Amino acid sequence: MASDPSLIFTNVDYNAQGKQVDWLYLPHSVTRSAYGALAIPIAVIRNGDGPTVFLMSGNHGDEYEGQITLAKLIRELEPEQVRGRIIILPAANLPAAMAGTRVSPIDQGNLNRAFPGDPQGTPTWAIAHYIDSVLYPMADFHHDLHSGGSSLKYVPFCSMRNSGDPALDARSLAALQAFGAPLSLVWAYNPEGRLAGAAAARRGLVSLGGEFGGGGDVNRSSLAMLEGGVRRFLAFAGVLANTPAPEPRTDMRMIEVSSREHYVYANEAGLLEPLVDLGAEVQAGDPAGRIHFIDNPGREPVTCHFRRAGMVVCQRHFGRVERGDCVAHLGTDV
Amino acid sequence: MASDPSLIFTNVDYNAQGKQVDWLYLPHSVTRSAYGALAIPIAVIRNGDGPTVFLMSGNHGDEYEGQITLAKLIRELEPEQVRGRIIILPAANLPAAMAGTRVSPIDQGNLNRAFPGDPQGTPTWAIAHYIDSVLYPMADFHHDLHSGGSSLKYVPFCSMRNSGDPALDARSLAALQAFGAPLSLVWAYNPEGRLAGAAAARRGLVSLGGEFGGGGDVNRSSLAMLEGGVRRFLAFAGVLANTPAPEPRTDMRMIEVSSREHYVYANEAGLLEPLVDLGAEVQAGDPAGRIHFIDNPGREPVTCHFRRAGMVVCQRHFGRVERGDCVAHLGTDV
Amino acid sequence: MASDPSLIFTNVDYNAQGKQVDWLYLPHSVTRSAYGALAIPIAVIRNGDGPTVFLMSGNHGDEYEGQITLAKLIRELEPEQVRGRIIILPAANLPAAMAGTRVSPIDQGNLNRAFPGDPQGTPTWAIAHYIDSVLYPMADFHHDLHSGGSSLKYVPFCSMRNSGDPALDARSLAALQAFGAPLSLVWAYNPEGRLAGAAAARRGLVSLGGEFGGGGDVNRSSLAMLEGGVRRFLAFAGVLANTPAPEPRTDMRMIEVSSREHYVYANEAGLLEPLVDLGAEVQAGDPAGRIHFIDNPGREPVTCHFRRAGMVVCQRHFGRVERGDCVAHLGTDV
Amino acid sequence: MASDPSLIFTNVDYNAQGKQVDWLYLPHSVTRSAYGALAIPIAVIRNGDGPTVFLMSGNHGDEYEGQITLAKLIRELEPEQVRGRIIILPAANLPAAMAGTRVSPIDQGNLNRAFPGDPQGTPTWAIAHYIDSVLYPMADFHHDLHSGGSSLKYVPFCSMRNSGDPALDARSLAALQAFGAPLSLVWAYNPEGRLAGAAAARRGLVSLGGEFGGGGDVNRSSLAMLEGGVRRFLAFAGVLANTPAPEPRTDMRMIEVSSREHYVYANEAGLLEPLVDLGAEVQAGDPAGRIHFIDNPGREPVTCHFRRAGMVVCQRHFGRVERGDCVAHLGTDV
Amino acid sequence: MASDPSLIFTNVDYNAQGKQVDWLYLPHSVTRSAYGALAIPIAVIRNGDGPTVFLMSGNHGDEYEGQITLAKLIRELEPEQVRGRIIILPAANLPAAMAGTRVSPIDQGNLNRAFPGDPQGTPTWAIAHYIDSVLYPMADFHHDLHSGGSSLKYVPFCSMRNSGDPALDARSLAALQAFGAPLSLVWAYNPEGRLAGAAAARRGLVSLGGEFGGGGDVNRSSLAMLEGGVRRFLAFAGVLANTPAPEPRTDMRMIEVSSREHYVYANEAGLLEPLVDLGAEVQAGDPAGRIHFIDNPGREPVTCHFRRAGMVVCQRHFGRVERGDCVAHLGTDV
Amino acid sequence: MASDPSLIFTNVDYNAQGKQVDWLYLPHSVTRSAYGALAIPIAVIRNGDGPTVFLMSGNHGDEYEGQITLAKLIRELEPEQVRGRIIILPAANLPAAMAGTRVSPIDQGNLNRAFPGDPQGTPTWAIAHYIDSVLYPMADFHHDLHSGGSSLKYVPFCSMRNSGDPALDARSLAALQAFGAPLSLVWAYNPEGRLAGAAAARRGLVSLGGEFGGGGDVNRSSLAMLEGGVRRFLAFAGVLANTPAPEPRTDMRMIEVSSREHYVYANEAGLLEPLVDLGAEVQAGDPAGRIHFIDNPGREPVTCHFRRAGMVVCQRHFGRVERGDCVAHLGTDV
Repeated sequence: MASDPSLIFTNVDYNAQGKQVDWLYLPHSVTRSAYGALAIPIAVIRNGDGPTVFLMSGNHGDEYEGQITLAKLIRELEPEQVRGRIIILPAANLPAAMAGTRVSPIDQGNLNRAFPGDPQGTPTWAIAHYIDSVLYPMADFHHDLHSGGSSLKYVPFCSMRNSGDPALDARSLAALQAFGAPLSLVWAYNPEGRLAGAAAARRGLVSLGGEFGGGGDVNRSSLAMLEGGVRRFLAFAGVLANTPAPEPRTDMRMIEVSSREHYVYANEAGLLEPLVDLGAEVQAGDPAGRIHFIDNPGREPVTCHFRRAGMVVCQRHFGRVERGDCVAHLGTDV
Repeated sequence: MASDPSLIFTNVDYNAQGKQVDWLYLPHSVTRSAYGALAIPIAVIRNGDGPTVFLMSGNHGDEYEGQITLAKLIRELEPEQVRGRIIILPAANLPAAMAGTRVSPIDQGNLNRAFPGDPQGTPTWAIAHYIDSVLYPMADFHHDLHSGGSSLKYVPFCSMRNSGDPALDARSLAALQAFGAPLSLVWAYNPEGRLAGAAAARRGLVSLGGEFGGGGDVNRSSLAMLEGGVRRFLAFAGVLANTPAPEPRTDMRMIEVSSREHYVYANEAGLLEPLVDLGAEVQAGDPAGRIHFIDNPGREPVTCHFRRAGMVVCQRHFGRVERGDCVAHLGTDV
Repeated sequence: MASDPSLIFTNVDYNAQGKQVDWLYLPHSVTRSAYGALAIPIAVIRNGDGPTVFLMSGNHGDEYEGQITLAKLIRELEPEQVRGRIIILPAANLPAAMAGTRVSPIDQGNLNRAFPGDPQGTPTWAIAHYIDSVLYPMADFHHDLHSGGSSLKYVPFCSMRNSGDPALDARSLAALQAFGAPLSLVWAYNPEGRLAGAAAARRGLVSLGGEFGGGGDVNRSSLAMLEGGVRRFLAFAGVLANTPAPEPRTDMRMIEVSSREHYVYANEAGLLEPLVDLGAEVQAGDPAGRIHFIDNPGREPVTCHFRRAGMVVCQRHFGRVERGDCVAHLGTDV
Repeated sequence: MASDPSLIFTNVDYNAQGKQVDWLYLPHSVTRSAYGALAIPIAVIRNGDGPTVFLMSGNHGDEYEGQITLAKLIRELEPEQVRGRIIILPAANLPAAMAGTRVSPIDQGNLNRAFPGDPQGTPTWAIAHYIDSVLYPMADFHHDLHSGGSSLKYVPFCSMRNSGDPALDARSLAALQAFGAPLSLVWAYNPEGRLAGAAAARRGLVSLGGEFGGGGDVNRSSLAMLEGGVRRFLAFAGVLANTPAPEPRTDMRMIEVSSREHYVYANEAGLLEPLVDLGAEVQAGDPAGRIHFIDNPGREPVTCHFRRAGMVVCQRHFGRVERGDCVAHLGTDV
Repeated sequence: MASDPSLIFTNVDYNAQGKQVDWLYLPHSVTRSAYGALAIPIAVIRNGDGPTVFLMSGNHGDEYEGQITLAKLIRELEPEQVRGRIIILPAANLPAAMAGTRVSPIDQGNLNRAFPGDPQGTPTWAIAHYIDSVLYPMADFHHDLHSGGSSLKYVPFCSMRNSGDPALDARSLAALQAFGAPLSLVWAYNPEGRLAGAAAARRGLVSLGGEFGGGGDVNRSSLAMLEGGVRRFLAFAGVLANTPAPEPRTDMRMIEVSSREHYVYANEAGLLEPLVDLGAEVQAGDPAGRIHFIDNPGREPVTCHFRRAGMVVCQRHFGRVERGDCVAHLGTDV
Repeated sequence: MASDPSLIFTNVDYNAQGKQVDWLYLPHSVTRSAYGALAIPIAVIRNGDGPTVFLMSGNHGDEYEGQITLAKLIRELEPEQVRGRIIILPAANLPAAMAGTRVSPIDQGNLNRAFPGDPQGTPTWAIAHYIDSVLYPMADFHHDLHSGGSSLKYVPFCSMRNSGDPALDARSLAALQAFGAPLSLVWAYNPEGRLAGAAAARRGLVSLGGEFGGGGDVNRSSLAMLEGGVRRFLAFAGVLANTPAPEPRTDMRMIEVSSREHYVYANEAGLLEPLVDLGAEVQAGDPAGRIHFIDNPGREPVTCHFRRAGMVVCQRHFGRVERGDCVAHLGTDV
């Protein structure tokens, strides 16, 4: 049951001063290793009292910019630069991160659909449970770094998620302005409670997300955006010694996703030719893509359309689609 | 044996006038279908006498721009526009094209490493044998359209392959100039005889290739480049009625790949951060990428370097690498 | 939790007048499609007020007669023929239906062992939950069309399941007589609550089932029986405009399955030779099948026997058996 | 090379008198067994001098009537009933027979497309090579018992294959008449040399085949036909002591398959509804089946047609089809 | 829910006198068998009144000494030798036992991490539920026979687990002394409630375990130790007619595992060279193993160390390790 | 064709002086890496003129003592210790070595059944071809280090293989005596030409082998035997500067395997209980093992027997067997 304690163990002492780079050990008893454990890397950097910031990447294993950014941060950040505590989980769903896949090859679990998790469940759910029951309660601020994954490409943005608590949302908005991405997005349509961000909100954390790339690639400009933004987020949280909170960025574009109609889904299975560019502004009824039947080239392609106006903030990356795949989604100005 | 006849059968009559869109049937007797056949689409458009041009895509199933271009061409081109014969094989390795993979899911075969094929072999080799023993002997001109595939991204270019026959190479160069891509490439380093292009050269065809995109995505500007270029190639071949041969493009940049040293390989397994942009000009010794160990973030990354100067015409797409994966390759001005 | 709302969304308006043929979208976020959804076809035909009949097939993906019957009905039935509402789910476990398997290739789920389902579970359980929590509450009458599946072959029959509520059972019996199959069967032995039919009974629906074929084949005479019967069932329910309720069939044979002893299980693994024909009348102790050891033909076969008298209404289809596989089962006259 | 000796070893002495039931051992060195061998059952029954008959089943692992018939024969036939030698290979492709599949689960090999085999190849090819290079040269008469397999169902028949040698064909025809099935078939269209029957003809054997059932099921009436027919075939060959050659059957129907046009292939992927019954007489242009799109029930089905007149001797068994699957094939009166 | 009754059925009557060797049938409805059941062997030997002893092996499928011991006991033990009841489940997780794997090939379930189970869950959890809800409540004494499994090798020992109930632990200690292995072990560190032994303790059973071999092999001396010990355990329980309880062994070595620090985990992935022998006495800080990087032999190996003193009672068997695999564990004298 | 050049490339210069530790690159173009190569480690240590010794391990990936020995040798041996050239291939079938399996996970290839290989074949055959066509022609002496693999355990020995050339065999025997293992074995029964050792003999190399452990484990005493023996072999070959050839060991036991009858094969599938210990001396007819039917414990086990007298030099490691698996094999004194 979710109320049982986690079976994950670690040599890390979350209250110790200084910098620890070690592993969370998740027991995973299988044929190739009866007393084996998945060793999930974690770093804790603490110096005196102050807020706790919990940074996470590798929630989806095929989203890399965050993983690289946090791995660098672990090596570069020293205790004397910190005031309070920074906890970094750079490869949250480790088996997925090592396989370069969204879901874990062990249990097919999508960590970002597994909250609040299960301490006796398969690894993905056991990880979600540890984050939700151990790490979130220790933290004041949280950033979960995403990049669209293998199947989607994004105009990079930093984001927050409406929590239903206006005071908390105001603090998250301030964090978003501090992060300072040129494009910021508010997830205003929230049908899902299984997301890490939804769980963080339930725990009362000031919490950001974002999609910094996509397609399973590593984007150098997104990486640069992310490296600067994470440092500004830490400064905003007050966890960097001798670094004042940044000025909020005032010139960024602010968009939202606020309905199911922001999304376009494939109406057939086939080979998708996009009919607009990523970042384009479209009108309701504009064609989004054309699906070709390469096994039967004499058959006419079918077209799918946008259902409302907005900016094409996301497009499918892979050429092949199944009916029901997301072809694109829009953001609309707030 | 390679000299046996193909078991592939078809309703297409290669000598008939008019336009036929039908299938090659490759017998594939398995548990789910004892008398089943793989139905590989093919189109033949003939009008009177003239040269034969054979266009092919889907040699690699995860390279899409060519597949879309040729599927459109099949629907749009009518016999009266033709003088001679155009044969189009838009999804040459059909099982791979339907799966969106480089290699066939049936036999793990890479069609572009399977020539001259085997009529009694598994499907990929049987397809190679049919192309080599039936289609190539009918053709005068050939274009095999590629896009880098899931694992590589390219500055788009059209290409030819040095055949060792100066007269044939001169004709291919003229075809390349007619195609008119802004960047053209000569494969001057040819350790492999199993490629479609090498087989076409052995058959004496004027033959082009090219990489028009990459990463398993569909690139709209590459698509536009390809659609225009293929029409100019057809006109150059003299197979379009009422369309004169195009002027050769004189301002295109011409590069070559002429040694193993043009390539950079990963020296470790891990998460690859590229250190240059696609299209950059580099010097020998410049860093090409840095490999991070996300399972052990305290370990220092390792760097791999370019071995000579040139233009970064290709980079790896996926974030994860194994030792020996191609990280990037260069083209050098001719 | 089962009380949470479903994540399935749809463009269908269950209250709108007229005919809608569209999809249920079940979010399924995986590596190949981060924002993908399984698109499960559904049709709603409504005309004014009246009862709601919910027809379903593809509960098991390898049972085809119902799928064909309902697909035809969707195309043929027009709103003016209806008085009330008909909801048709022709491929309930869509991934299984597309794969031609009993269980879903995604989660190995058997939809007919997944009720009442789980909105946060894997696709099979999420589908069960939607049917149980959204579709069943809208319906008055239900028919779930089966055909034995790949591993069993049946003397075709229509069936009902004893619910424990005599009034409800009387109405279901009337429906069974209206359907009018030559053979009708009552499931009087009900150890399982996870079946669709058990869930429909818990919701108070007048509900039929039946096995109209088997072996993973499509049987033309079962198909004809099914097409006529479904129309009579609709008329019985009062949902067809201008079509009176049919006369109950009085000459049908009525059998039941009322104990574990109706079933014969394989007592060894091997190659099963049936020793009676489908439809035969047998006595307790009669041989049902003989299991041969083809890897060791000198070893004597073993025989398995019927444990009581009855009609052989079902036999295993595949030649190979494991110990514990059902070799045959009986029906006994009511 | 095919001329190398087989690596298969056995304790059987083909020249010894009496009855031996033992195994052929095919070395198969894999991780789970470094010095393992596949143990393929074989029986040899010899009594004095006389002809050699070689009976085989399990060429396709999912065709069961022959396997049962030959396993019974091995247990029942005693040396004193024999004059000469009978060699029985009841599960020729053992891994396929144990898995109940057409092709071997080890190498995906279809034994009936693997002749003349390869002694150093994977197991299916090594078995083909042993049959062709060791067993065929010992034999005078051969019967290879088939049943259509999982994907096809047949009107049961015994068959011969035109060899191109009229004298040999006349002897095979006499054998066919001796076997005495009500329906007999001549394979007059032979595009394939990789079949067991083609190899047997190259070795000069009087050789029969036949399809005695189908669909992966065990058919009791086909089994009875087969058991009687095999005994008459043995008597015809002169290998049964005290049993005279049977009278040739004169009232059997004799059909042939003599062209590609006898076959109907699926023109789309979907759910196949057959439009005729097995055994029906059809005309050119008659509909053979209708393919439904169950994922999109609003789309109109497509129909496929017979290309000539004849008797529907074979139909597809499974409901699902891919384009290129055989939907049905005809036999035409000789 | 765990409180629902099991769906497992059986012909065994647990209250009948005499010896029954039969099966538990666990319904498992899948494509290859719609009404199939897993047939798990069970034996019950009863003679009059007396205690009930429940013996189990095959909890992990790749631990064989217990399976062989109990299979022999089933054939050898006759009712007249018994006073009371002996229940034997020799292959508890049957699919794993047939596959020779720790976890079930059906659901990847580790039975010894599945208690208290789930009657509606996948097979491993359904088996755990039956043991916990049906078999444990019938028993007074229990022995669950293990052997380390494929990945671990052990100095063989019999063991008990501290239950938290001193009276129960005293009785288990007496049972351990009666069993009489030269080495006995107490599991004093119990972070897991999902083990069979933990469930047996919750049910109040006097319960033993033990690791009698390892590495996926069958050890002849462990087998001999086990065969004698099980008979002494039965005599201790008072369930053998005419056999008095054995004298407790007083010279055995008694060790315990009482902390996480008894275990050594791999700190890298690679090829593990053990640096001590199984059974050695070590000091804190001693090297336990060295991990080589065979893909990169120029890289220096890394060493992992013991964290405290003790006897090396267990070592990893396989050469390859992942970070987090157990390299060895210690026992320390009580 | 085997006469084509290898596609493997490397930065190693086999003629350069000094020590090089680098990789062989085998192009392997697949979906995850279009221009990828398998990077197989190799070391070359050269100092002046002298003989060339080629040492190899990882021919089978699950045999580890050789891999560890050669990895150490690569790090420890410096050019000044050498006179001539030592070539070391420590993980010959790299994909198998990384997976810890006998056969390659890429192509299921057993490298020791793949000689003389195929330059255009799948990786295992391409590696065999490189060894046979590039490395063997450079060498004078060869040692291929084995350890039985996952499925077999051995009394450790060093071995030679009768080549048919008495002069060569005399030199190999001298090498065997120099290696100095307490037990030495001659493979006098050679039905297979696909072995590395057979290929080395065809190339005229003085060549040793041996089985130094087994069961997929790492054996510390075998490792010690191997480390000393390899150094003595190098000294014998004259490739170590300042180290004289060792005295031949005169007290070693010398056995041979000279017939098929030295082997015992399982006569059923089940759970194998060995009935003798490894290293025992047995007589013809002695029982070798007993096979239990754990799914049906009431069935009597079957026994398999030795067919001649000898020393049990090898036994199966895994508990589960299939019919045809090697249960044990003997060596007999020369």
